[in-house]
Amino acid sequence: MIGHGFMGAAHAQGWRVAPRFFNLPAFPVPQLIVGRSTEAAQGAADKWGWHEAGDSWQEAIAREDIDVIDIVTPGDMHAEIATAALEAGKHVLCEKPLANSLEEAEAMAESARAAALSGVRSMVGFTYRRVPAIAYARELIATGRLGSIYQVRASYLQDWLADPQVPLAWRLQKNRAGSGALGDIGAHAIDLVQYLVGARIAAVSGTTQTIVKRRPLLEQPMGLGGMGGAEMGDVSVDDVAIFTARFNDGILATFEASRFATGRKNALRVEISGSSGALAFDLEDLNALHFYDSTLPTTEQGFSRILVTEPGHPYISAWWPAGHMLGYEHGFAHQARDFVEAIVNEVQPSPSFDEGLAVQRVLSAVETSADHQSVWTPANDRDGHSKEGEDHQ
Amino acid sequence: MIGHGFMGAAHAQGWRVAPRFFNLPAFPVPQLIVGRSTEAAQGAADKWGWHEAGDSWQEAIAREDIDVIDIVTPGDMHAEIATAALEAGKHVLCEKPLANSLEEAEAMAESARAAALSGVRSMVGFTYRRVPAIAYARELIATGRLGSIYQVRASYLQDWLADPQVPLAWRLQKNRAGSGALGDIGAHAIDLVQYLVGARIAAVSGTTQTIVKRRPLLEQPMGLGGMGGAEMGDVSVDDVAIFTARFNDGILATFEASRFATGRKNALRVEISGSSGALAFDLEDLNALHFYDSTLPTTEQGFSRILVTEPGHPYISAWWPAGHMLGYEHGFAHQARDFVEAIVNEVQPSPSFDEGLAVQRVLSAVETSADHQSVWTPANDRDGHSKEGEDHQ
Amino acid sequence: MIGHGFMGAAHAQGWRVAPRFFNLPAFPVPQLIVGRSTEAAQGAADKWGWHEAGDSWQEAIAREDIDVIDIVTPGDMHAEIATAALEAGKHVLCEKPLANSLEEAEAMAESARAAALSGVRSMVGFTYRRVPAIAYARELIATGRLGSIYQVRASYLQDWLADPQVPLAWRLQKNRAGSGALGDIGAHAIDLVQYLVGARIAAVSGTTQTIVKRRPLLEQPMGLGGMGGAEMGDVSVDDVAIFTARFNDGILATFEASRFATGRKNALRVEISGSSGALAFDLEDLNALHFYDSTLPTTEQGFSRILVTEPGHPYISAWWPAGHMLGYEHGFAHQARDFVEAIVNEVQPSPSFDEGLAVQRVLSAVETSADHQSVWTPANDRDGHSKEGEDHQ
Amino acid sequence: MIGHGFMGAAHAQGWRVAPRFFNLPAFPVPQLIVGRSTEAAQGAADKWGWHEAGDSWQEAIAREDIDVIDIVTPGDMHAEIATAALEAGKHVLCEKPLANSLEEAEAMAESARAAALSGVRSMVGFTYRRVPAIAYARELIATGRLGSIYQVRASYLQDWLADPQVPLAWRLQKNRAGSGALGDIGAHAIDLVQYLVGARIAAVSGTTQTIVKRRPLLEQPMGLGGMGGAEMGDVSVDDVAIFTARFNDGILATFEASRFATGRKNALRVEISGSSGALAFDLEDLNALHFYDSTLPTTEQGFSRILVTEPGHPYISAWWPAGHMLGYEHGFAHQARDFVEAIVNEVQPSPSFDEGLAVQRVLSAVETSADHQSVWTPANDRDGHSKEGEDHQ
Repeated sequence: MIGHGFMGAAHAQGWRVAPRFFNLPAFPVPQLIVGRSTEAAQGAADKWGWHEAGDSWQEAIAREDIDVIDIVTPGDMHAEIATAALEAGKHVLCEKPLANSLEEAEAMAESARAAALSGVRSMVGFTYRRVPAIAYARELIATGRLGSIYQVRASYLQDWLADPQVPLAWRLQKNRAGSGALGDIGAHAIDLVQYLVGARIAAVSGTTQTIVKRRPLLEQPMGLGGMGGAEMGDVSVDDVAIFTARFNDGILATFEASRFATGRKNALRVEISGSSGALAFDLEDLNALHFYDSTLPTTEQGFSRILVTEPGHPYISAWWPAGHMLGYEHGFAHQARDFVEAIVNEVQPSPSFDEGLAVQRVLSAVETSADHQSVWTPANDRDGHSKEGEDHQ
Repeated sequence: MIGHGFMGAAHAQGWRVAPRFFNLPAFPVPQLIVGRSTEAAQGAADKWGWHEAGDSWQEAIAREDIDVIDIVTPGDMHAEIATAALEAGKHVLCEKPLANSLEEAEAMAESARAAALSGVRSMVGFTYRRVPAIAYARELIATGRLGSIYQVRASYLQDWLADPQVPLAWRLQKNRAGSGALGDIGAHAIDLVQYLVGARIAAVSGTTQTIVKRRPLLEQPMGLGGMGGAEMGDVSVDDVAIFTARFNDGILATFEASRFATGRKNALRVEISGSSGALAFDLEDLNALHFYDSTLPTTEQGFSRILVTEPGHPYISAWWPAGHMLGYEHGFAHQARDFVEAIVNEVQPSPSFDEGLAVQRVLSAVETSADHQSVWTPANDRDGHSKEGEDHQ
Repeated sequence: MIGHGFMGAAHAQGWRVAPRFFNLPAFPVPQLIVGRSTEAAQGAADKWGWHEAGDSWQEAIAREDIDVIDIVTPGDMHAEIATAALEAGKHVLCEKPLANSLEEAEAMAESARAAALSGVRSMVGFTYRRVPAIAYARELIATGRLGSIYQVRASYLQDWLADPQVPLAWRLQKNRAGSGALGDIGAHAIDLVQYLVGARIAAVSGTTQTIVKRRPLLEQPMGLGGMGGAEMGDVSVDDVAIFTARFNDGILATFEASRFATGRKNALRVEISGSSGALAFDLEDLNALHFYDSTLPTTEQGFSRILVTEPGHPYISAWWPAGHMLGYEHGFAHQARDFVEAIVNEVQPSPSFDEGLAVQRVLSAVETSADHQSVWTPANDRDGHSKEGEDHQ
Repeated sequence: MIGHGFMGAAHAQGWRVAPRFFNLPAFPVPQLIVGRSTEAAQGAADKWGWHEAGDSWQEAIAREDIDVIDIVTPGDMHAEIATAALEAGKHVLCEKPLANSLEEAEAMAESARAAALSGVRSMVGFTYRRVPAIAYARELIATGRLGSIYQVRASYLQDWLADPQVPLAWRLQKNRAGSGALGDIGAHAIDLVQYLVGARIAAVSGTTQTIVKRRPLLEQPMGLGGMGGAEMGDVSVDDVAIFTARFNDGILATFEASRFATGRKNALRVEISGSSGALAFDLEDLNALHFYDSTLPTTEQGFSRILVTEPGHPYISAWWPAGHMLGYEHGFAHQARDFVEAIVNEVQPSPSFDEGLAVQRVLSAVETSADHQSVWTPANDRDGHSKEGEDHQ
């Protein structure tokens, strides 16, 4: 595992827990954590129960006894590490967004396609697909329970930047993070919508905004932010990104990613309406899916709050009896399981780097549109769209 | 109309509005308001657009041009006025609870039965039956959508007494109000449950409590309470009443009536579970009914929030397009409509005085049980139960 | 009152009920209803208790005994009637949106300004401002409880067109309605946001869409739709309108108006976040306002569901005790009260025609932007903005 | 660890995860799982990563290298194992309810007290105290944010028996489980209320009921139930338990435990009202605590939904950034941490066996009351009450 920040802790928990609840075809051994310094990596390795620590991802990739590289660094290092690892024949799990630029993402997707020819697997860490309520939502849509889709509204709302004293963490620096709310959390919303609808966004009209333009330099990191000092620096990424997207068949979707949504802590929300029904989901209530069935008698229609904790729901039979809540990190256990299974069963895991690239194209198009008075800007072409069917089986 | 307090305002609105939305078979003329003083009654009559005011309910009853007597006084006067009015051949609408004692209620029910023989109608003002969501809940239960009933939990929670400075209004005096939370709001819960389940409570085990035992004497009434003075007096009724009830077939129901439920303003809640489904309702969200259908596939089950504002829902077609909320006082318009229709169509309106008596028997049994260490105490006998079918057609 | 459709019923209820609960300085007499045919108008007058019916609004305006003209027709007649009425010295209450085109709206606003010089009052029927929860939200914002505003998201979601068989009612015809979801319900959202924020939208980037392009011709009207025949016609208005708006100080607001939001019946939602707090409102739960106070200790922060039914809340003291719900049409009673008071007290009522014009400018800018690839398009200029302070005191 | 059913999986996860997120003063080694057969225990040990399996708890207790015995068997074996283990000087964590009878519980508590004299620790597995929202609720109450407590309502609602075909699992057999809903889930509610209020229940009036009296014999266990066969057997425990409880100072609390609450999967709900505020919690939304502060201005009061995921909330700083949900099993990690810390720091962990006994006394009193017409029956005496302060510091 390359990196050991917040995402490292989540991935480590995924690897730790997955084999204890699921019957995996292979047992993932938590071998090596690589950081900027061996010392810091060793702290993480000790805490999380990994066998070794190091400071060179190149050495990690060169090792014969390592089969899987899990990249949990900031986005600026994704491309280099992932490409090298794939070329070295390592299976790669890469955190989202795939890369900090469209060019990098395209190169990574190409590497992944090449590697796949020799059975080397790659996957992007859009774990929210693996929240049971979301996986179940996909089932309902794929089996036609919503009829033809009319509209989508998606937002990912946080408020950790609402306080102007929150310091300039790496997530606020364009050279490290690529973009702000757009790439960090907007990317999740984009992937989720493309996954749920089963199609790729063709074009967007978008706007971005940086509400607080200067912040204290970071002195002591903690969580997503930390303590700032007296000196100030420029915020070089967006705080808020808003865009409307169009699928090839004309369906419109609205998106908002914000770190200034006072009172919303981690509210990834999706609402999809169709000719036979509708769905609504909010990550702040992650075990519930709201489903409206418009084929019922009119007097009986209403959004039902389905607790997605029944044995028949995705992933649930491995866990607890009905009504026992899962949490945030369960998605990482599901991701670990699905990745191990794909590797052993020699199938392409999803989301593939191509799917990560499809998200990246949308991110890039939003920035282009925002730079051009929000004019409609193409994202994925029909070709991307037509290949989509293969990804989501 | 005898009385012109808070209930008077609600009834006046019901009479005013009903003929403007429903096609009534007769037009109710708002003729005369009777109060303790003609002056006060005249104020109400002017405000509400009634033609006359007076201070003698006896004179009102004696008038030939008055067909309907609407009793909205405190409970201590219900029996005398209602009995006299029925004997004078007036149709009577009487606020709940029917009376302040079981003896009075029995006499009133007998008067009502006698009067009915000559076509004189009587009804008790349990208006919450006429909230569309409740009327629709009754439909669902009556058509078997819940299967056989397993359990009921009902509560009516308010908090206007949570402040010990709230003064000794008439609702806190046993001689005026009969009882406290039990008769004032518990009565609503009892009637609602008997109505929804379609059966009468056979026995109860109950407890009552007066949390604040002395309060300032009332100096200036306002709303349910008002401003108190320096002198204190004894609270002679319960603040909280809690009881478990058993129907003849063994179904258990729990009840709580409280004026000390901090933060709950008018939370009349009912939850009914059965072999095929469940219902939940809260008067603080009065346009919604929550319905759980356990005949759906397990993965699709969930409580659905049905907005009871569709044309196919009870009473709704007279009002607004779907999704437009009704409020508290709409129940009084529905009550006025149903009463006028029953009178003109010469049928027994519901809830009848007998149904009011069935509630009174439960109130009385709760007090008896509470006085005897909460031991199980009979309320309605099987006979009451077996007659029930006639009431709720 | 000119017109007697759904809006006529709501206005009639407002006029009927307002003087019975509020102490009005003048008593509104429900004199004359004018329709396309006297016969139909007579039916409404009889049902709603108005004294006369007629078929000529010109005659109505010419009458000396009529002081107030209440316009509840489709938008295509607003301009002509309102202008004539104002010139005739009648106070005018005009349904929203103010007009079907920006030109008409500008002329109307000019007429209103001229009439105001001689004490003739005019107001636009954006009644949702008068939902107590909204009026209270405005108080919280105006007194600084949200600090400086960061973001706004607003949507008005309905689903009555989700069924392709719903016929071509007048609301779907550009020549009658001006626009579709945009002007009918989007206008409400725009006015609400401008009212709550206390500023005017400077520019927009928007998209509109007509999902179902042909529908059965209307044969029998009912509610908003009705029964269609075998013949089909073209829908000439939008089903969905989506836009991002920018205030002069850079604050972004997102808007969506949809008649295809399956399962949402009348969901006018507003969420406003600021440096000290946030608000959320949904018209499908109209007695509640959700308030987040970020000045509380971090551990105690949360959205609180305030039941806006306390005597200290706007309009409430005239109604029921705390916890008793109000409904949709109460806003019309509040509107009637506020209009009568403004007339008698000789002050400018709000929303003025100028405020209606400010909404119209946004509607027009959205359509222009939608016609030009969603490019940012100016709506109200700074001048409009700077005058705004006068409107909302 | 003695036992390896559903509770075994939860405890194993707690032991596995606690040292990876918290800084424990000692590292818990997952050594030995004991079952009825070594083979079955070996399966669990392999799955969960424990070092050894066995079939003799006596041998386990005799081992010198084992310091902690974790008892996750059905209740009928708790007393024997716990007492022996404590006498052998092992620290004991015992699943709830403490025992199947009051006598056993008293003996266990005595053993625990004796063992504590020589530094041997014991704790009961009421993990719901360690849901962060509950621990935070306790903080609010203990620091006086609710003022003096007025009322408590608690219920634990499940529906897994609502289907009469669910078979006779061990939880439905009195000789294994001790009681039904009462001891299994009602015990949780009792402990929670005593913990939150900081006092012990003095007396109860209760009712129990077995709605479905005969069920298919169990053929294949799964989750809490499983597949039944053709033969039927008698249910020997309650399906539903309802009781009212009184604390020594007169506060009333209502309780319901039901396995027939259709649609409620795991709804442990507590609502507490006091003179300064109120709290509401539902385990089906376990990251949220609803808090009503009645010291705020009246117009601003409302139940706020606090997401208990801030670093300042109990246990949270070890986990994820704000807004990231925890799940059911996190309570077991918190329990493991607290138990290890108590052992190493040589303090009495809570809930102690005495606290478990205080729950058992209530369970026993409910059964006695239910056998005697629900008459009020003493549970804990004042002495128990007065000692309570020591437990909850």
